[in-house]
Amino acid sequence: MGHGIEDVARAAGVSTATVSRALRGLPHVTDATRERVRAVAAELGYVATPSARSLATGRTRTIGLLSPWVSHWFFANVIEGAERALREQDHDALLYTFDVFELGPRRRVETHVLRGRVDGVLVVGLPLEDAEVADLDALGRPLVFVGAGPTDRCTVRIDEVAVAHLAVRHLLELGHRRIAYVSGHPDDVSPWSAAVLRTHGWREAMTEAGLRTDLQVNGNFDMPGGRAATHELLDRHPDVTAVFASSDEMAMGVVVAARERGLRIPQDLSVIGVDGHELGEVVGLTSVAQDVLAQGREAARLVLRVIAGEPVPVRVTPPVRLVVRSSTGPAPA
Amino acid sequence: MGHGIEDVARAAGVSTATVSRALRGLPHVTDATRERVRAVAAELGYVATPSARSLATGRTRTIGLLSPWVSHWFFANVIEGAERALREQDHDALLYTFDVFELGPRRRVETHVLRGRVDGVLVVGLPLEDAEVADLDALGRPLVFVGAGPTDRCTVRIDEVAVAHLAVRHLLELGHRRIAYVSGHPDDVSPWSAAVLRTHGWREAMTEAGLRTDLQVNGNFDMPGGRAATHELLDRHPDVTAVFASSDEMAMGVVVAARERGLRIPQDLSVIGVDGHELGEVVGLTSVAQDVLAQGREAARLVLRVIAGEPVPVRVTPPVRLVVRSSTGPAPA
Repeated sequence: MGHGIEDVARAAGVSTATVSRALRGLPHVTDATRERVRAVAAELGYVATPSARSLATGRTRTIGLLSPWVSHWFFANVIEGAERALREQDHDALLYTFDVFELGPRRRVETHVLRGRVDGVLVVGLPLEDAEVADLDALGRPLVFVGAGPTDRCTVRIDEVAVAHLAVRHLLELGHRRIAYVSGHPDDVSPWSAAVLRTHGWREAMTEAGLRTDLQVNGNFDMPGGRAATHELLDRHPDVTAVFASSDEMAMGVVVAARERGLRIPQDLSVIGVDGHELGEVVGLTSVAQDVLAQGREAARLVLRVIAGEPVPVRVTPPVRLVVRSSTGPAPA
Repeated sequence: MGHGIEDVARAAGVSTATVSRALRGLPHVTDATRERVRAVAAELGYVATPSARSLATGRTRTIGLLSPWVSHWFFANVIEGAERALREQDHDALLYTFDVFELGPRRRVETHVLRGRVDGVLVVGLPLEDAEVADLDALGRPLVFVGAGPTDRCTVRIDEVAVAHLAVRHLLELGHRRIAYVSGHPDDVSPWSAAVLRTHGWREAMTEAGLRTDLQVNGNFDMPGGRAATHELLDRHPDVTAVFASSDEMAMGVVVAARERGLRIPQDLSVIGVDGHELGEVVGLTSVAQDVLAQGREAARLVLRVIAGEPVPVRVTPPVRLVVRSSTGPAPA
């Protein structure tokens, strides 16, 4: 009893860092060393106590991942990428979901659950109100944003306005003029949410082309939402020939609704989404694709750099690419 | 300085439990009470310190979620359901992914990262070797399994053998005889993995019907894997008329491969998956559907019940249902 990590290191003839890595199952330790360290630790009765270590160092080696969902594609991939990058650097991921739009009016994100639990917070695609950002700042821990973030805060995100321009330009080049937009949730009014910025880009691109910008519906960022939105849209505006959906999951809802209405894709209706979801290929979905796992990894590394006192960029803008498949084609004559 | 939770409770005129709930943002506290507690806590400089609380109580109020992936549909939904159920009961979710099959031979799950961090562990769809289960037991914390688990351990899982029988029976009733099976990963040989049990069920159902059981390929539980497996299968056995895939994501890979080979679904090839993935509807995928969010919630509640010393069932078997859509039809003449 009472043996510390230094005792284990001395007895095993390695550094304390190696003891820590060996006992936490991290790489860069040979199997032989790992076995020796474990044997020594067992013999000395040494057990690393994270709570005690945390009190001693003031560090939890844990990063909070704050996300509205896990089950949506973008969020699942960011979280997977972030968790792996954190673990590579010997940090844990504490997961908090806040479905702010669930069941009626938008709920306020409760930040108190994070107090004292984390060394930093990654906000994953969650458009926050200023007061909520202030609450998070009051935790006294670095914040990094991914997928959506205030303009003056360290954020990993694609250029949402450019994404909308890219999608609209593709449809314009195919001769479409009645181009509708399926956005996210109507309560999502944060000036820096992905849905709002893509709406801005869509309006800008349509206006530049001299086209109307009233063909917009909300699809709740999921397949059933995109499907319902498309029925609502085509009931009101049956002459729409192309739909730009703000996620591939919603775009697949557009495809389902089109089929239910007897419309052929792309002969009667062209559909383009955003994300590059693997399953988009199943229906030949054209999409503005992004590498979301990489964004999760990058954002996790940035929060660790902030914690380490290193300078970080205010903005990291990963590339996107237009993936043209069979869901977009020439506008009907 | 130095004020404890009792001081806050006394000054605010509420119980310590209410102080805890108010400061952690939990429900069942009125807004007025929450504001009063926060104001008093701020005035007294009281900050709940989880590390200190953990040392004092020996409890972390944290459950480890051990999962091979987040980005795959089943896992994302279990994790979302579990995290929400845990937070409802004032517990945190610590997320650990171990992609045991990534990059070559199966890696051993490292359990040391969980030591001292959690009050219990939820193993999410991760087929473990006996030695790995023993390592987890050595943490001295309750284990609950979801999606896959040893027969004698508390596990929430559908009846995998029955799932395979249900799928094969549907295809037999449509007149199919050359029915292939797309399984998971070839290294996945745990006797209680979903893929292995479904394989067993498929063989059983085929044998009972007097049919051959050598039409099996591995699809790695993702869309690209299902697609590659189908090309491999149909190169060797072009007379296959129906495919049972062990997940909807793989089944959608079967659909893509069929289209690439110029096969019509279901006229030339019938396809059935497992899961009830929302996006299956986009291609009219027939599936044996399960409610995965509910399984995550249920498993999380079970681990908390074990921690509370309450008796729990060894097995919870959620229902499945056959959802017939357009991807299955009569066998070609």
